[in-house]
Amino acid sequence: MPTIAYLGPENTNTHAAALATFGRQSRYAHAATVDDVFHLVERRLADYGVVPVENSLEGTVTHTLDRFIDFIDTPVRIHGEIEHRIQHYLILAGRVKPAAVRLVFSHPQALAQCRPWLAQYLSHAAPRETNSTADAVRYVLQNTRMRAAIGRQELAAQWGLKAISIPLQRENKTRFLILGLGEPQHRRRSKTSLLFALKDKPGALHDALVPFKQHGINLTKIESRPSKRKAWEYLFFIDVEGHQSDPRVKKALAALARSTSLLRVLGSYPISK
Amino acid sequence: MPTIAYLGPENTNTHAAALATFGRQSRYAHAATVDDVFHLVERRLADYGVVPVENSLEGTVTHTLDRFIDFIDTPVRIHGEIEHRIQHYLILAGRVKPAAVRLVFSHPQALAQCRPWLAQYLSHAAPRETNSTADAVRYVLQNTRMRAAIGRQELAAQWGLKAISIPLQRENKTRFLILGLGEPQHRRRSKTSLLFALKDKPGALHDALVPFKQHGINLTKIESRPSKRKAWEYLFFIDVEGHQSDPRVKKALAALARSTSLLRVLGSYPISK
Repeated sequence: MPTIAYLGPENTNTHAAALATFGRQSRYAHAATVDDVFHLVERRLADYGVVPVENSLEGTVTHTLDRFIDFIDTPVRIHGEIEHRIQHYLILAGRVKPAAVRLVFSHPQALAQCRPWLAQYLSHAAPRETNSTADAVRYVLQNTRMRAAIGRQELAAQWGLKAISIPLQRENKTRFLILGLGEPQHRRRSKTSLLFALKDKPGALHDALVPFKQHGINLTKIESRPSKRKAWEYLFFIDVEGHQSDPRVKKALAALARSTSLLRVLGSYPISK
Repeated sequence: MPTIAYLGPENTNTHAAALATFGRQSRYAHAATVDDVFHLVERRLADYGVVPVENSLEGTVTHTLDRFIDFIDTPVRIHGEIEHRIQHYLILAGRVKPAAVRLVFSHPQALAQCRPWLAQYLSHAAPRETNSTADAVRYVLQNTRMRAAIGRQELAAQWGLKAISIPLQRENKTRFLILGLGEPQHRRRSKTSLLFALKDKPGALHDALVPFKQHGINLTKIESRPSKRKAWEYLFFIDVEGHQSDPRVKKALAALARSTSLLRVLGSYPISK
């Protein structure tokens, strides 16, 4: 039975994504920060870690990418990804009407995603940011008469509160990474995640992408992040289709190594969809 | 005398960047959100707007870029950029020792940037996120015995508090955009900011960068953001050197228009450094 570390607390979306993938039979350890999840995997206190990496509306979870930059030699590799549909609920005490709510607590991403709905139906309530959706519910429990939270239905059930479904106009999905040590074994359709730094010369990004074009390898994602060493110097995260052991990908990676000043293969793993 | 709208409240870093650029003679209007700054410029209630767009440690201010996506036909153009060095101060009442502090309030970016210093010297205090550094000081004023804020020296002076300089290990600069209507007139060394969507085919990003490579135009920044229409579909923001009226840039933009499904020139403006 593997032990799964995830960005907690319990009943958050990360917990739900981990449960959907590893099942109720696994052991779970919730961590307070993304950094803690990495640590638990690095120290072999957990077999796998689950952390959010990207939301379809809000974009990249920068903490997660930056952990690969801040600890550039981490042995942690990406073993998989989980795509999880996000459904938000307004959570409040059973006898309280939404019109009575004065403060709405939630994680900043959840508040941002529900902003149009809140503006329409709960404009009399002020938003309050919390570290997690689970923390948000704790604030509600302190004063159930005038407070509500936004979070998963399970959170409402956990504390005997009611949950009102919040319809969203746009597709809301979060992508999570499965972290582990070593290289995962699998044969399914793969993607490979890379981290690299460009050489300081004009056209460097173009040159870095040429090998993928030449070998017909599709790029599914590119993200730049500050190097933190020097202002306006960037590192790049890219996802490409294929496994690092595929001959075509191997050739492209060899060419990429020549046109970059730093290159890390963060992992090859099955595409989620 | 122009009117300058900026992301407020007063004495924040955005205010300081605006003052350093437009001087004490201009009139200033502080806005509560990035969206409000855009609105004031769009309705001609302000001649210029100043909003943060990027920090050298924390990366892009996604709200600012996303405003260009959410209102794709805004008449607002980028008229300039301001690079501003950030110096944080621990702000607390004159008679209070840092050892007595239990809660440290500040904007999430300021807290993130000071995290190593806080861990070393103020590990007994818990961080609390606020909407701005100015709001953080208001929380301190509610209980000066055990609370501190992180912000600019001017904020401490404004409320008669003391300010202790926080040394940072890494270069901390924020880049702000100057927003306006119409095209700015200038002759200095320029950069041009672009927003585009790729056609859905392999190698599309590579193909979009080819014209810049071919015409010897340097790319200084690339950033991808969710399209918000479809999960895992992206829009790209790039900055290139040169003015949109330069013959080379003109040719590259014409080629880019053919290889993209959407293209907006957000502005050509003088490079700050």
